[in-house]
Amino acid sequence: MGFFFTYPHCQVCDWREPEDLAALLDLELRENGESQHQLLKRVQDVAKYSVKTNHPRFFNQLFAGVDYHALAGRFLTEALNTSQYTYEVAPVFVLMEEEVLSKLRSLVGWTHGDGIFCPGGTVSNMYAMNLARFRAFPEVKVKGQWALPRLAVFASQEVCHYSVMKAAAFQGIGTENVFKVNVDDRGCMNPEDLCEKIELAKSQGAVPFFVHATSGTTVKGAFDPLESIADICERLGLWMHVDVTDSVTWNPHKMMLTGLQCSAILLKDTTDLLKHCHCADATYLFQQDKFYDKSLDTGDKSIQCGRKVDCLKLWLMWKAVGSKGLEGRVDRAFAHVRYLVEEMKRREGFQLIWEPEFVNVCFWFIPPSLRGDENSPDYQDRLSKVAPTIKERMMKQGTMMVGYQPHGGRVNFFRMIVISPQVSHEDMTFFLDEIERLGKDL
Amino acid sequence: MGFFFTYPHCQVCDWREPEDLAALLDLELRENGESQHQLLKRVQDVAKYSVKTNHPRFFNQLFAGVDYHALAGRFLTEALNTSQYTYEVAPVFVLMEEEVLSKLRSLVGWTHGDGIFCPGGTVSNMYAMNLARFRAFPEVKVKGQWALPRLAVFASQEVCHYSVMKAAAFQGIGTENVFKVNVDDRGCMNPEDLCEKIELAKSQGAVPFFVHATSGTTVKGAFDPLESIADICERLGLWMHVDVTDSVTWNPHKMMLTGLQCSAILLKDTTDLLKHCHCADATYLFQQDKFYDKSLDTGDKSIQCGRKVDCLKLWLMWKAVGSKGLEGRVDRAFAHVRYLVEEMKRREGFQLIWEPEFVNVCFWFIPPSLRGDENSPDYQDRLSKVAPTIKERMMKQGTMMVGYQPHGGRVNFFRMIVISPQVSHEDMTFFLDEIERLGKDL
Repeated sequence: MGFFFTYPHCQVCDWREPEDLAALLDLELRENGESQHQLLKRVQDVAKYSVKTNHPRFFNQLFAGVDYHALAGRFLTEALNTSQYTYEVAPVFVLMEEEVLSKLRSLVGWTHGDGIFCPGGTVSNMYAMNLARFRAFPEVKVKGQWALPRLAVFASQEVCHYSVMKAAAFQGIGTENVFKVNVDDRGCMNPEDLCEKIELAKSQGAVPFFVHATSGTTVKGAFDPLESIADICERLGLWMHVDVTDSVTWNPHKMMLTGLQCSAILLKDTTDLLKHCHCADATYLFQQDKFYDKSLDTGDKSIQCGRKVDCLKLWLMWKAVGSKGLEGRVDRAFAHVRYLVEEMKRREGFQLIWEPEFVNVCFWFIPPSLRGDENSPDYQDRLSKVAPTIKERMMKQGTMMVGYQPHGGRVNFFRMIVISPQVSHEDMTFFLDEIERLGKDL
Repeated sequence: MGFFFTYPHCQVCDWREPEDLAALLDLELRENGESQHQLLKRVQDVAKYSVKTNHPRFFNQLFAGVDYHALAGRFLTEALNTSQYTYEVAPVFVLMEEEVLSKLRSLVGWTHGDGIFCPGGTVSNMYAMNLARFRAFPEVKVKGQWALPRLAVFASQEVCHYSVMKAAAFQGIGTENVFKVNVDDRGCMNPEDLCEKIELAKSQGAVPFFVHATSGTTVKGAFDPLESIADICERLGLWMHVDVTDSVTWNPHKMMLTGLQCSAILLKDTTDLLKHCHCADATYLFQQDKFYDKSLDTGDKSIQCGRKVDCLKLWLMWKAVGSKGLEGRVDRAFAHVRYLVEEMKRREGFQLIWEPEFVNVCFWFIPPSLRGDENSPDYQDRLSKVAPTIKERMMKQGTMMVGYQPHGGRVNFFRMIVISPQVSHEDMTFFLDEIERLGKDL
């Protein structure tokens, strides 16, 4: 295991051009097997050329860092290799999943409810949309969407780019039926515009049924005003997702460090909606004459048949550090963000795009040659090339990784994500020094 | 690791009633963390009370056994913890996934095509149905299903119970629009009835677009007649799934022993349908001004955003044993099935339900008290209680695990699945002896 974690000597990535990497790895699968010696070399190569996402200088994604208890849970899950569908083949994990979901629900503020682990946040969001459709129109399961009026989904323009659109396309709702709600400067949904978009949808003959709110958007880390949105949804009878009303997607594989994949859809529902909406009653799995309580066979709540066990890593980590330990990590991440922002304000060339609400720190680096040049006609064009160039240099040198993107009319800017509890103030200082070093000649 | 594999001393399962197990495991998550000593005890308990799915006497599911190279690949995947969406964060796995998919396609008989790893076979099947719908009616992505005529899906009555129904429900197509095609005695789709059901759907105003064929059904292990079905689909312009025409779901986590989850959807398509159908163009992941070939960022082919790496375990195992090694394992499983069937025919009380086409051996055990009593009025009722009782006894003693179910008018029968290459003739003999021992007094 030593080769994974030899920080700080180990690079974040060992960049190779795709054709060189393909040649180095010798990926071809052949008729005959290879020797143990060759295989060990291959395992080392896979590790060497993979990105070290748990390196303290990986800030590129909404996941980072490692929790060794969660990692032990992941190894144990792999060794035990079972499917999360019946008490018969997964007795420990059926009970454990329920306990973990119940704990997550209690942190949301619900004393009762339902839920399930899904393969990632997008699928969790799809569950929510499907359940909302089924609650509003139970006939959709049998008759399909032809039996329904045109439906309308609402999400802020900040999150309309990805999982909501994928869900609408995959579930036959259609992307043009996702109404984009305006946001304020911080990226938070505007409740008044939500009401206007609901009226707009109705005026087009569509039936509003689902509002997708977000706590911590992907780019800005913005929090939608959940209480105002909840009031609107309650008044109009719409399903509200991510909130205090109907359902929440929670991805412990992000800030809770469990490792991919670990995503839960949590429901306030106590009417067994999850089961009614998804059940297909396979008699070869869910025999009705079992010698134990068949309500323990929770597999038919899922849209999947076989389902990977995703609860153990989270449970073991939680047992190891307790709720207090998890809370402390979140506090530490916010403290790092505050430190980083203060340091940025002290240094020339770092321009915050907005004050962070969360662990996303979005900023432009203005290289010396551009400083004071804000009014020249090619400024935006030149600024847009800074982040991609610095990114290319950092990856080819392997010193750290951070993401960038254009967003809502703003040219490319960096999005620094601070998640891992292993990160120190020194890593924050290194980050800023490194951006300066890589961009000083631009 | 020793406690996982101390066969034959280790039981297949250590059965506990749910309330006893919950008490033993102390599942509650608390404010404070626990000591390393307590955590080690918990890890041991999780392993002790979990079903040993890689025990040579676990015949209960369509997965069993373990391949240690695949297991090493799974541990490595967990340690490297990255998401399979861009070359930037998963350079090795982007290239590796393409190689593995290409190899699987070549075994299907395709020199070109596309594909992606999905979280399980049901999701792979959903991809196929969604792609077929999109190919037939590209406007569905934007406008939703209201822009489309009522659609019709076809699947044999053998597979209509689960993943096809879940897909039809989840994707807004509706379960009543899945037309059930009759099967022959062996459980194989009847091509003439397929034509009749297509006409029936048309006469109801529905538009046929998707035929779901199966190679190795869940209960019987039946193979649909792919060539006849392909002819019909080609003539009528329907998407055929699982075959030589359009798409195949291949689950290496079953007979190829990679461990859950490992499922690929393979496509013959070369028009980038997967991308067109699923893309949502998130600029924060798929920046257009990257310094490398952005076609390597394959994440937008997926309906997910973050996606677990599922190719490494398969690749490493394949490198280790070669195509020949994998072929040999399949041959060995079939040899075990033949041996088992011959032994059953030699023994009194074992009644095969049909000659196995695959690795599923379906049979009734007729206890001594029932033999020769076939014509008594309560025979079927008494026979239906045999399998559940034997199953309860074997689980409470933990000696082995095998599934049972009623099926198509036949009362509960055992379904023995022979997959693992670690299984021996002795295990087959033990299996039969044990069924006799557990059922001799019934």
